[in-house]
Amino acid sequence: MDPQTGLPVVGVVGAGQLARMMHQAAIGLGQSLRILAETPASSAGLVAAEVRHGPADDLAVLRDFAKGCQVVTFDHEQVPAEHLAVLAAEGVPLYPSPQALVFAQDKQAMRARLGAEGYPVPRWASVGSHDEALAFLAEVPQAGVVLKAARGGYDGRGVWFLDDADHLAETVDQLLAQGVPLIAEERVPLTRELAAVVARSPFGQVAAWPVVETVQQDGMCREVLAPAPGLADDRALAAQELAIRIARDLEVVGVLAVELFETPEALVVNELAMRPHNSAHWTIDGSRTSQFEQHLRAILDYPLGETAPLAPAVAMANVVGGSEPGSLDERLHHLFAADPGVKVHLYGKEPRPGRKLGHVTVLGEEIQAVRERARAAAETLQGGV
Amino acid sequence: MDPQTGLPVVGVVGAGQLARMMHQAAIGLGQSLRILAETPASSAGLVAAEVRHGPADDLAVLRDFAKGCQVVTFDHEQVPAEHLAVLAAEGVPLYPSPQALVFAQDKQAMRARLGAEGYPVPRWASVGSHDEALAFLAEVPQAGVVLKAARGGYDGRGVWFLDDADHLAETVDQLLAQGVPLIAEERVPLTRELAAVVARSPFGQVAAWPVVETVQQDGMCREVLAPAPGLADDRALAAQELAIRIARDLEVVGVLAVELFETPEALVVNELAMRPHNSAHWTIDGSRTSQFEQHLRAILDYPLGETAPLAPAVAMANVVGGSEPGSLDERLHHLFAADPGVKVHLYGKEPRPGRKLGHVTVLGEEIQAVRERARAAAETLQGGV
Repeated sequence: MDPQTGLPVVGVVGAGQLARMMHQAAIGLGQSLRILAETPASSAGLVAAEVRHGPADDLAVLRDFAKGCQVVTFDHEQVPAEHLAVLAAEGVPLYPSPQALVFAQDKQAMRARLGAEGYPVPRWASVGSHDEALAFLAEVPQAGVVLKAARGGYDGRGVWFLDDADHLAETVDQLLAQGVPLIAEERVPLTRELAAVVARSPFGQVAAWPVVETVQQDGMCREVLAPAPGLADDRALAAQELAIRIARDLEVVGVLAVELFETPEALVVNELAMRPHNSAHWTIDGSRTSQFEQHLRAILDYPLGETAPLAPAVAMANVVGGSEPGSLDERLHHLFAADPGVKVHLYGKEPRPGRKLGHVTVLGEEIQAVRERARAAAETLQGGV
Repeated sequence: MDPQTGLPVVGVVGAGQLARMMHQAAIGLGQSLRILAETPASSAGLVAAEVRHGPADDLAVLRDFAKGCQVVTFDHEQVPAEHLAVLAAEGVPLYPSPQALVFAQDKQAMRARLGAEGYPVPRWASVGSHDEALAFLAEVPQAGVVLKAARGGYDGRGVWFLDDADHLAETVDQLLAQGVPLIAEERVPLTRELAAVVARSPFGQVAAWPVVETVQQDGMCREVLAPAPGLADDRALAAQELAIRIARDLEVVGVLAVELFETPEALVVNELAMRPHNSAHWTIDGSRTSQFEQHLRAILDYPLGETAPLAPAVAMANVVGGSEPGSLDERLHHLFAADPGVKVHLYGKEPRPGRKLGHVTVLGEEIQAVRERARAAAETLQGGV
């Protein structure tokens, strides 16, 4: 506990925008996060008081970092599971636990576990050779194949859409030669993507935000609409229940985001994330309790906060670096003049094409209107395409 | 400008809770505040990355602190006006400017200026001797006298209610001997206290939040009700117009809080603050744009944000250290279990009786209901009386 305040010290492994926004929420709870940053001038390192530097894949660094923390949590999944197992065995309080986190770190483990428990997942197979990949392609000739790195992918990296047998075999050979563990999945004939985001505490309390629609571009989340427009009540409830059951079954502590494919007939689980997630950034301005505050409450076993939205319609758009050079400061002037109601969250990153620099949120009565405003705001800030 | 982001560097003189909450807002705008802290482990120093230590009444410290800042602003008024004048003459961008800030630093200057401009102020006199104090008492025998330190008072400090001539003369002698500059005011027969909070940019844009009722106890703000219950529309509008006119006349840049006495007949100006103010803490959770974001937008000459409230009724209660020892962490558990909708803001201070440790905010439909919840939440956190 912090000696001055008597309040907990939370350590966050990783110093990206999630840690940055978590620190912002921690300030309200009387805390100041301890951040483990890999690089100088990181998104969270720029704004937090207690920043330590070191690689997140070094056991000694992690062990030292955890000393004096009431709980250690994560900004990203790129922490070796074997190190986390050692730390847990040494009594370091880690949330989510290594046993849960593996299902967000390893898509093969996730698919195997969820499939075994009867959750709706796409047809899939692990791929240890190009023969296995071709055999799987033969099983799903109509759908086509999505090849995925079982570990380490994000924002569309580590995902390849391959329908042609030669191309598939060649890609598999290349990736296996690089040591990338692979799975293959059938392409789901989705109508759109949804996300069900919940939080769970060690005590077992769960809280769910409204189910949202997520709009991806080149595999990167670009827009989130809350609640998902036109989603049938029973399907929304089913998605929330699905996420809550997964949180319980996997004993997740903290925020769990379940990315879903919606098809005309069903919901299919795409990915899991066990941390605050892009699909719930809208909660900072749009919900009584933000996902960042809720994640901290959950991992500290505080009772969870209300998840009620603050407006009938909320839209979030990511700000992704564009091709035109220009001053973010000047663009902020234009944006604030154009729309005094938009909420801006910038991540302190150097603008580069294709890089997530921030997000904007708009609240209102009607989803298409707020979506247009959020999109226009993001375009103003990002500059070019 | 920050070399990585191209966004402005804002310096804040002082490291109390206002600087802490301003930093929280700055994170969203892509910034990281530079904080000048007098003491280690200060409220803002605990949570910000760039903290410099030194006394705010040392010109060399201030000059060094301001280097590289796009603008320097203030967490409190205890910065010598003569130092600020030197810095301004050297071209340091200060908002509010020293010429404006003096009217928040010096009650005599404020009373003289507002009186000369025809603003409604109580009858008052400067007091350079006990004879002057007694002469003023003779002018307002029915009302009684409030003796005030012209500089340096806050949270009820530097204010004395004195109706008895002997006691008045004795107090004046003591204070003058200590070098405290004094003014005397008639006691206003108020029905309640209000606050009109606005922001103004160098461009001249102004924005006003709804007028609130403030509830003091021992001179310290304890509760704020937004909007002020039962306030007639024309009087609310008059209070907003009054604050906007004062902001323009005094060329205030940033947030201006005008504390008002309401009497059956009129509004009377009590105090001015040219910074985020306790009476607008409710805006963090309860308004589209918080006073902390708005202050930053104003001093950076960004267009101002919408001030619409997010619910029909918002109540804020301060958390003031109580007499019972106990763990703030444990109290947070109880509070979150009792009311999952309350928003908590803790300031990172060591709990001590009578000290402002934080505040809580509740949004809802009906003011008495949210007031009860806010009061109950504050009582849970503060422990004893």
